[in-house]
Amino acid sequence: MKIAIINGPNLNLVGRRQPDIYGSQDFDTYLQQLRLSFPHVEIDYYQSNVEGELIDKIQQVGFAYDGIVINAGGYSHTSVAIHDALASVTTPAVEVHISNIFAREEYRRHSLLSDACRGVVCGLGMEGYRYALMSFLPAPSTT
Amino acid sequence: MKIAIINGPNLNLVGRRQPDIYGSQDFDTYLQQLRLSFPHVEIDYYQSNVEGELIDKIQQVGFAYDGIVINAGGYSHTSVAIHDALASVTTPAVEVHISNIFAREEYRRHSLLSDACRGVVCGLGMEGYRYALMSFLPAPSTT
Amino acid sequence: MKIAIINGPNLNLVGRRQPDIYGSQDFDTYLQQLRLSFPHVEIDYYQSNVEGELIDKIQQVGFAYDGIVINAGGYSHTSVAIHDALASVTTPAVEVHISNIFAREEYRRHSLLSDACRGVVCGLGMEGYRYALMSFLPAPSTT
Amino acid sequence: MKIAIINGPNLNLVGRRQPDIYGSQDFDTYLQQLRLSFPHVEIDYYQSNVEGELIDKIQQVGFAYDGIVINAGGYSHTSVAIHDALASVTTPAVEVHISNIFAREEYRRHSLLSDACRGVVCGLGMEGYRYALMSFLPAPSTT
Amino acid sequence: MKIAIINGPNLNLVGRRQPDIYGSQDFDTYLQQLRLSFPHVEIDYYQSNVEGELIDKIQQVGFAYDGIVINAGGYSHTSVAIHDALASVTTPAVEVHISNIFAREEYRRHSLLSDACRGVVCGLGMEGYRYALMSFLPAPSTT
Amino acid sequence: MKIAIINGPNLNLVGRRQPDIYGSQDFDTYLQQLRLSFPHVEIDYYQSNVEGELIDKIQQVGFAYDGIVINAGGYSHTSVAIHDALASVTTPAVEVHISNIFAREEYRRHSLLSDACRGVVCGLGMEGYRYALMSFLPAPSTT
Amino acid sequence: MKIAIINGPNLNLVGRRQPDIYGSQDFDTYLQQLRLSFPHVEIDYYQSNVEGELIDKIQQVGFAYDGIVINAGGYSHTSVAIHDALASVTTPAVEVHISNIFAREEYRRHSLLSDACRGVVCGLGMEGYRYALMSFLPAPSTT
Amino acid sequence: MKIAIINGPNLNLVGRRQPDIYGSQDFDTYLQQLRLSFPHVEIDYYQSNVEGELIDKIQQVGFAYDGIVINAGGYSHTSVAIHDALASVTTPAVEVHISNIFAREEYRRHSLLSDACRGVVCGLGMEGYRYALMSFLPAPSTT
Amino acid sequence: MKIAIINGPNLNLVGRRQPDIYGSQDFDTYLQQLRLSFPHVEIDYYQSNVEGELIDKIQQVGFAYDGIVINAGGYSHTSVAIHDALASVTTPAVEVHISNIFAREEYRRHSLLSDACRGVVCGLGMEGYRYALMSFLPAPSTT
Amino acid sequence: MKIAIINGPNLNLVGRRQPDIYGSQDFDTYLQQLRLSFPHVEIDYYQSNVEGELIDKIQQVGFAYDGIVINAGGYSHTSVAIHDALASVTTPAVEVHISNIFAREEYRRHSLLSDACRGVVCGLGMEGYRYALMSFLPAPSTT
Amino acid sequence: MKIAIINGPNLNLVGRRQPDIYGSQDFDTYLQQLRLSFPHVEIDYYQSNVEGELIDKIQQVGFAYDGIVINAGGYSHTSVAIHDALASVTTPAVEVHISNIFAREEYRRHSLLSDACRGVVCGLGMEGYRYALMSFLPAPSTT
Amino acid sequence: MKIAIINGPNLNLVGRRQPDIYGSQDFDTYLQQLRLSFPHVEIDYYQSNVEGELIDKIQQVGFAYDGIVINAGGYSHTSVAIHDALASVTTPAVEVHISNIFAREEYRRHSLLSDACRGVVCGLGMEGYRYALMSFLPAPSTT
Repeated sequence: MKIAIINGPNLNLVGRRQPDIYGSQDFDTYLQQLRLSFPHVEIDYYQSNVEGELIDKIQQVGFAYDGIVINAGGYSHTSVAIHDALASVTTPAVEVHISNIFAREEYRRHSLLSDACRGVVCGLGMEGYRYALMSFLPAPSTT
Repeated sequence: MKIAIINGPNLNLVGRRQPDIYGSQDFDTYLQQLRLSFPHVEIDYYQSNVEGELIDKIQQVGFAYDGIVINAGGYSHTSVAIHDALASVTTPAVEVHISNIFAREEYRRHSLLSDACRGVVCGLGMEGYRYALMSFLPAPSTT
Repeated sequence: MKIAIINGPNLNLVGRRQPDIYGSQDFDTYLQQLRLSFPHVEIDYYQSNVEGELIDKIQQVGFAYDGIVINAGGYSHTSVAIHDALASVTTPAVEVHISNIFAREEYRRHSLLSDACRGVVCGLGMEGYRYALMSFLPAPSTT
Repeated sequence: MKIAIINGPNLNLVGRRQPDIYGSQDFDTYLQQLRLSFPHVEIDYYQSNVEGELIDKIQQVGFAYDGIVINAGGYSHTSVAIHDALASVTTPAVEVHISNIFAREEYRRHSLLSDACRGVVCGLGMEGYRYALMSFLPAPSTT
Repeated sequence: MKIAIINGPNLNLVGRRQPDIYGSQDFDTYLQQLRLSFPHVEIDYYQSNVEGELIDKIQQVGFAYDGIVINAGGYSHTSVAIHDALASVTTPAVEVHISNIFAREEYRRHSLLSDACRGVVCGLGMEGYRYALMSFLPAPSTT
Repeated sequence: MKIAIINGPNLNLVGRRQPDIYGSQDFDTYLQQLRLSFPHVEIDYYQSNVEGELIDKIQQVGFAYDGIVINAGGYSHTSVAIHDALASVTTPAVEVHISNIFAREEYRRHSLLSDACRGVVCGLGMEGYRYALMSFLPAPSTT
Repeated sequence: MKIAIINGPNLNLVGRRQPDIYGSQDFDTYLQQLRLSFPHVEIDYYQSNVEGELIDKIQQVGFAYDGIVINAGGYSHTSVAIHDALASVTTPAVEVHISNIFAREEYRRHSLLSDACRGVVCGLGMEGYRYALMSFLPAPSTT
Repeated sequence: MKIAIINGPNLNLVGRRQPDIYGSQDFDTYLQQLRLSFPHVEIDYYQSNVEGELIDKIQQVGFAYDGIVINAGGYSHTSVAIHDALASVTTPAVEVHISNIFAREEYRRHSLLSDACRGVVCGLGMEGYRYALMSFLPAPSTT
Repeated sequence: MKIAIINGPNLNLVGRRQPDIYGSQDFDTYLQQLRLSFPHVEIDYYQSNVEGELIDKIQQVGFAYDGIVINAGGYSHTSVAIHDALASVTTPAVEVHISNIFAREEYRRHSLLSDACRGVVCGLGMEGYRYALMSFLPAPSTT
Repeated sequence: MKIAIINGPNLNLVGRRQPDIYGSQDFDTYLQQLRLSFPHVEIDYYQSNVEGELIDKIQQVGFAYDGIVINAGGYSHTSVAIHDALASVTTPAVEVHISNIFAREEYRRHSLLSDACRGVVCGLGMEGYRYALMSFLPAPSTT
Repeated sequence: MKIAIINGPNLNLVGRRQPDIYGSQDFDTYLQQLRLSFPHVEIDYYQSNVEGELIDKIQQVGFAYDGIVINAGGYSHTSVAIHDALASVTTPAVEVHISNIFAREEYRRHSLLSDACRGVVCGLGMEGYRYALMSFLPAPSTT
Repeated sequence: MKIAIINGPNLNLVGRRQPDIYGSQDFDTYLQQLRLSFPHVEIDYYQSNVEGELIDKIQQVGFAYDGIVINAGGYSHTSVAIHDALASVTTPAVEVHISNIFAREEYRRHSLLSDACRGVVCGLGMEGYRYALMSFLPAPSTT
């Protein structure tokens, strides 16, 4: 199983940027933990501040991978083009936001990407990436 | 650890109601599995179609439990009163929606409750309840 | 043939409340006449001021009856939850308003329920209930 | 008793136009049945695609007839002038729509004519004309 | 000097229609007085309920007359096409409304025609036509 | 003289809930003081979290009491049904809010109930109930 | 007969200010001509740039004069207080604008004063004051 | 204790202006009664129709008095500058409206001043000034 | 192959009307050239200023022709009825505008007809009719 | 003659992406045909998913070429910057959309680029590029 | 060179009013420094809380001075009349705001005056007046 | 002291692009002058048409420099991502626009970046960069 995690603009600053909103853990450390939790999943990580490069990446993985976990940062609220990329590929995506965007500024409460994704996880911190990833796996059996 | 799952109107029909949107599994079966997955968590379940009874319940558990997982169904989009109940209590809440409300009718894309909750999980089916519940537990260690 | 007539908040005051808008006939008297007009139809009548109890009733009759005639009063303009109940059951519904809501205050000119109903009758007074009921019967033959 | 039924643009195509929305019965056949049902009512029928000709007709019958049943089709949503004609005459009117306009496109959910009419019947198919017509007659006695 | 007075829908009913709004004088009587007041002005009068016929008339006089006095009734609020006709011809126009449209329903407070006219006179009753007509004449000398 | 004080959702938590907004005095203590201040007024107190039960109460006292003092909490901003109940009864009502709703979130700045009440008192803390009650009494003479 | 002409802010600059919009005639010259045209009418003229002084003037003449001709300039679009002054006095008013405000900037197309006036004349240049004044006189007889 | 009552435009006409809305008592008579009711409070009264003079007054009393009772009349709905004056001084203010502004015209339902005041009293007639004044005094003891 | 070109209001003035916007060529001359370019296509041309006559025409050709090229002029922005006519017939339509409506007045930037057409050509002058017509023909082969 | 065709984000997927909307022909094949059709026109083709690179390209060709045919995909609806690039250069542009954007999602119905272009062709499939290109050539003579 | 600095309502309180927003320096001290910096510029300073007096001042200097630096305080957001005064005079103006109005309340983010000014400086504290003043001087030479 | 000047899309065309709006001086010449004026300030200049590269630059200088002068061109009105970059770094920024954006098209009157900046300078031509730069320096002493 292959999952791509795609992070958008300014998410390279997580841990350093507005820690009261985004927490103080940096993404690389978190990613390492995540990979340890899911040893059988191949997790491909990509970050760019350039809208078009995020589209390039979505197109590249979007016909081959099993899932996309996407946090497009500020582009979430303005990019029809990323929306179209997600809608054009066959791999399903889940949108993640570290902070609770619905409790922030008005213009941040609406994501143009959500209806091109299978679902959304927001406000649950870094762990949101874990839940998004889990949603591509079979539900744990309890027998 | 004590978690309350509170379901609002029409969620008693899940499995029977619009299965293309909500799936065909009924909630009781799912709840049973969830309890097996988290044997050390006391999961209190409550459903009502009455807005005020949901408020009564939130007030009752809201100063004593460790977390509230709430899916207020149609009241999510119209109830300032449930919002106020969530904001008035000290127990944190996570909002869940089975379907992706952002890919549905216009009036269903905005929840009045979200900014009184810690976070939101939507569109990931029944399993959304699991992720919401997990967010109240410590992150799994990987050592 | 079984038809449920479901009246929402303040409709228990009809005949006594704002008679210039709602007329001076009380609902019980009217219901008696209606039952005499349709001796072969079983007419089940229910009124509540509680939004959730209206939902309970819709769920109870909504998989068993042949039609629902609903006048949700003030909840018509605010209740996504009653809308969802009507959309979740299999029995078709027709919405009735005694007064012409389109000639009243701005906020009263839009009903959230209408698109979950088969049709709407409004402004034709008490007799609106009759026409709604008739719409569930076969059209009268004229031969 | 004299009642005018006035149909607006494209209603001459009913039975032929978008049958999933408007049904497959043509209006002339229906009108014939309606006249048989109400032998003591003189039913005057008029159809035009021209907005101003509908106004001419309303003015012509509007001081002499007992009721107007109007389905102004697409003009319902845009015509202040037909609204003014209905408000200028003394004969009361009832608005009819074959389909449930509240479950269709946004711009079709508001009729400018409704507040100049006594009431509205919509979504009940052809039979809506019957109910509108009945509303001008005395309620059936049940003794 | 040649002036066209063009009246739109329902203005043929003035004197008979809603006299509390439009007064009880009929237009023909008024027109006769107006012609007597301005013996050297040729006043051409036209009324139609059909939007397109008003456009035909505007086109016909609009390259030959000295002024157009237009009261387009209900079309004032909805007709881009009449606006375009007025903007396409070379004869200047003045818009008249008998009642004060700014003290009436919301949708009647905006005329699409006003910016294609030289000016507007409203709320001054029938005499508004006189003032509009006077505005095409040279100002009275006072010596 | 009989006055009903009717409190809506979450007002049972006053003194305990968000004390920076609502103060730290609980309602029962305040009510006791109020009754002592007005020994000749019968003060009936009722609180419910259920919208429909508030309507039941308004209907019950609304044809018999001299005044209603209502703080409908979160329902103030969303309930056409409570508005209709207040408009349907003959007892006049005064709306009270403990906090200044006009200095809070956007959606809290508009009460649907205000135009069905005689007046509004807001932002003056618990004492707002006193002023609302006083408004039903004759003005104090100063001779 | 006594008529007050009240001019608001910047109208003291007419003839000097933006002559392509307001013309090149100054108001005093025009006023002199107007007085000669109506020798039997006492015309009281007042101009101020201060909103409150315009209100003072309206109150002063508003219970004694036969008519007010008001051009409130920029305050027309923003002043509820001048609107209230006009609505509070018993003398009727007619609103005048020299330019066609409906063909200018969006915010200039709506006057708050219009519905407190009997009518409006706009876009007919200085002569608009004459027509407004005439509307307070009896219509000219033509016998 | 020193309280300033500041009245805005047209409130000098109270008792004479639209008595169905504002009552028939003039303010001076009422003020006399109010002073008798509160012999230990120094009540300073000021009225102006000029927005800037109201600001001057607020600045003058706003660092020295114990409370401001303000009814800014029509400026309530349009004046950011009075809002800023109230927000700039240290004396708290309570806003009063004699009529229920929430049951009047749309543009009158929103006051720009409310969020710079401690609270609002409206619709309770002249007595609203009394309640506003009382809110600056200690609550009456009942022992 | 049979194509109908249908022109709406004021398009009979093209060449004479606002030549800076619409050019100085008249439509008849252009039509002649167009027919010469497509000798094997039967081009039926119709122009009317009357909305309802355009609908009549659409209905007449709309079940028999291979394509409709429609420029409804000012009706494009206001006519639900023409939209419905286009949606009711089986012949596909392409919308043409001579000028670039997206670079003009706000109200001209939205056509109600576009979503009932296959496509839109605008701003390319008279030649837009040619491209619309070509779109009904097979694409030119290049072998 | 030199024409640049500039395609924006996701248009590299045409033929593979949502074929029900965009058709199944890939762009390279189409381009080849187009070049064969216009042997005397030099057609420069460029595609990028990066907004800024599209701007770079527009600047590069925009002072040297005879025409730009631009389909900016999802950036059409959000990019003021591309609009500014088109407005800054001297080469005229024509906007193309393969699908009929006016019959799709609300946010896709408005292009920010249209008023910086000479015209728009949409909904006519791939062939839209041909018509846009043709519009830069002299109209075909028919003699 | 003569420059007028015109300050609107509440700016006389600067240094004393909300120092976290406006700083703690009073304007007179600052003005003294400014005059020392520009010994060859005659700086005329004026402050008023009265909107009309600001207009009087603008008219007085507006045909004689070389520049106006205006901070109209709260009137910036509501005054069409000051806008018109600035647009009527020939002296150019630059608008200044001490605080960053774009980072404050919604209603404060739009100034009606800006488009009648040459430019705007905001959020740069008192020094904004310096930059506005400098913009009327020739750019400093660097040779 | 180190200041970064960051210019966004199309600003590389200044001097060549729409000179009536942006002037005819090119940026490099201006920059040279600016550096001469401030010999002790290190001025780092960067321009890109790519949104993400502007973000890269902001992140690179945003924890090390003393100030950022940013003119994001067309991205100012659409980019939440650049806003977030400015809000994420610790270096303060001042926004500059060469033209007066408040006197241009509607969509250009609002900058998403302004509330993440310390202040804004617009409409003062190239010299706006100088004032923005000066605002990072200590105010000139005048002793």
